Amino acid sequence: MITSTQNPHIKHLLLLQQKSAQRRADGLFVVEGRREVEHCLAAGFSLRTAFVCPELYGPLRNLPRDTEVIDVAPNVYERIAYRGGTEGIVAVVRERKMSLSDLRLSASPLIVVLESVEKPGNLGAVLRSADAAGADAVVVCDPLTDLYNPNLIRSAVGALFTVPCVACSTEECIAFLREKGIRILTAQLQDSSLYYDAPMTGPTAIVMGTEATGLTDQWRRAADAHIRIPMLGRLDSLNVSVSAAILLFEAVRQRQTKKE
Amino acid sequence: MITSTQNPHIKHLLLLQQKSAQRRADGLFVVEGRREVEHCLAAGFSLRTAFVCPELYGPLRNLPRDTEVIDVAPNVYERIAYRGGTEGIVAVVRERKMSLSDLRLSASPLIVVLESVEKPGNLGAVLRSADAAGADAVVVCDPLTDLYNPNLIRSAVGALFTVPCVACSTEECIAFLREKGIRILTAQLQDSSLYYDAPMTGPTAIVMGTEATGLTDQWRRAADAHIRIPMLGRLDSLNVSVSAAILLFEAVRQRQTKKE
Repeated sequence: MITSTQNPHIKHLLLLQQKSAQRRADGLFVVEGRREVEHCLAAGFSLRTAFVCPELYGPLRNLPRDTEVIDVAPNVYERIAYRGGTEGIVAVVRERKMSLSDLRLSASPLIVVLESVEKPGNLGAVLRSADAAGADAVVVCDPLTDLYNPNLIRSAVGALFTVPCVACSTEECIAFLREKGIRILTAQLQDSSLYYDAPMTGPTAIVMGTEATGLTDQWRRAADAHIRIPMLGRLDSLNVSVSAAILLFEAVRQRQTKKE
Repeated sequence: MITSTQNPHIKHLLLLQQKSAQRRADGLFVVEGRREVEHCLAAGFSLRTAFVCPELYGPLRNLPRDTEVIDVAPNVYERIAYRGGTEGIVAVVRERKMSLSDLRLSASPLIVVLESVEKPGNLGAVLRSADAAGADAVVVCDPLTDLYNPNLIRSAVGALFTVPCVACSTEECIAFLREKGIRILTAQLQDSSLYYDAPMTGPTAIVMGTEATGLTDQWRRAADAHIRIPMLGRLDSLNVSVSAAILLFEAVRQRQTKKE
């Protein structure tokens, strides 16, 4: 049982939480919470180490046999856990990079493409909405995106493990979508039609830029159609995860209504 | 020009930012940022004090004449501003409580009702979505809700001032909606129909519970219809502001499509 926050295991864990360079160098990242760890295992990730606080986690340890399990005292757990002491597990997980060719798509894929990620928490929230809408994948067009940022993992509440998420270049993404015959709908205010007038029952990728600057010309030119969410208030923007959810659930509505 | 963070004005400002009891006692709250202050003034709120960092805010001071303007040095501004030094204004604003009877409703009102608020940031995000959807009001059914929490104001990015927001009891809210002939649609997974099958072109209130426990029986019984967003993934919930946006924009879609 580790009782000191100065223990080398704990120090390394804190580095993994705090530094994306450390995560990259080690090919490891950190997942906190019982349900998140379950989703992570169900998605086929493997745990290198599980730090468990016995008083919080309880006796049942439904973890794979090859997991190194290290018990930690409550004071140590408090230091390594972000959400406080409700769940009792913080796991170090082996990274598993996915590329576009790894995606297994449904008959009529629904994909969200983000041109870049302003805040990791936003990508997590997009993943959560993508899970709810049954989307096939979320693609981020920046190969250097850190998919294992703690804010991302937290705001995704498990969706990083239930929705395939790929980071790649814009060129790769456009080539992939064209090759697969997936229609590219870009979300943009100018020169666009209302999103609910766009058919989304066929293979569809919804592409969104940043809240601040919108989409680049490269995506606008690659689009099969430009769509916009009408802004009926006095402010002029929506959160990117909210926009993604509105557009994804319009696709859900069209697809489910068509079925009936 | 205030140069010390120990100045009594600054100390009071920090208290207003940190303590809801102080806000309540003084009937004051704090708004940061040029655009947020503009929205706040446009909504008819009055500023008691504007703390301005001249180097960041620039020479143009488009503030009402009766505003007490206090210049602060960059080091002080850094202490009182959350977002860092990009805008140069933090204002102390006089509270103005709104009640249901103050609401001026459109011919076919669209209202969001939250049974309670788990996180102030979520209410701010709901307000932002409500602004975009042109909703008439957001009502929170807890008279003690602190509408002036800094996280709420930040995440609303101005929408606290563009969308009327009322805190009241559940009984008052139900009585108000019935009196005005506004249909009550409660969002709940059990015993409900798909949200896009519910007509929302008439006067509509969308009522949502907490992410953790959902709606109380009081609201379920008061409902004219129960609606749900289909969950097609492996997780079982959406963020409340995302759910609100999906439901609000379905109302927008129905209303705009009907018009054509």
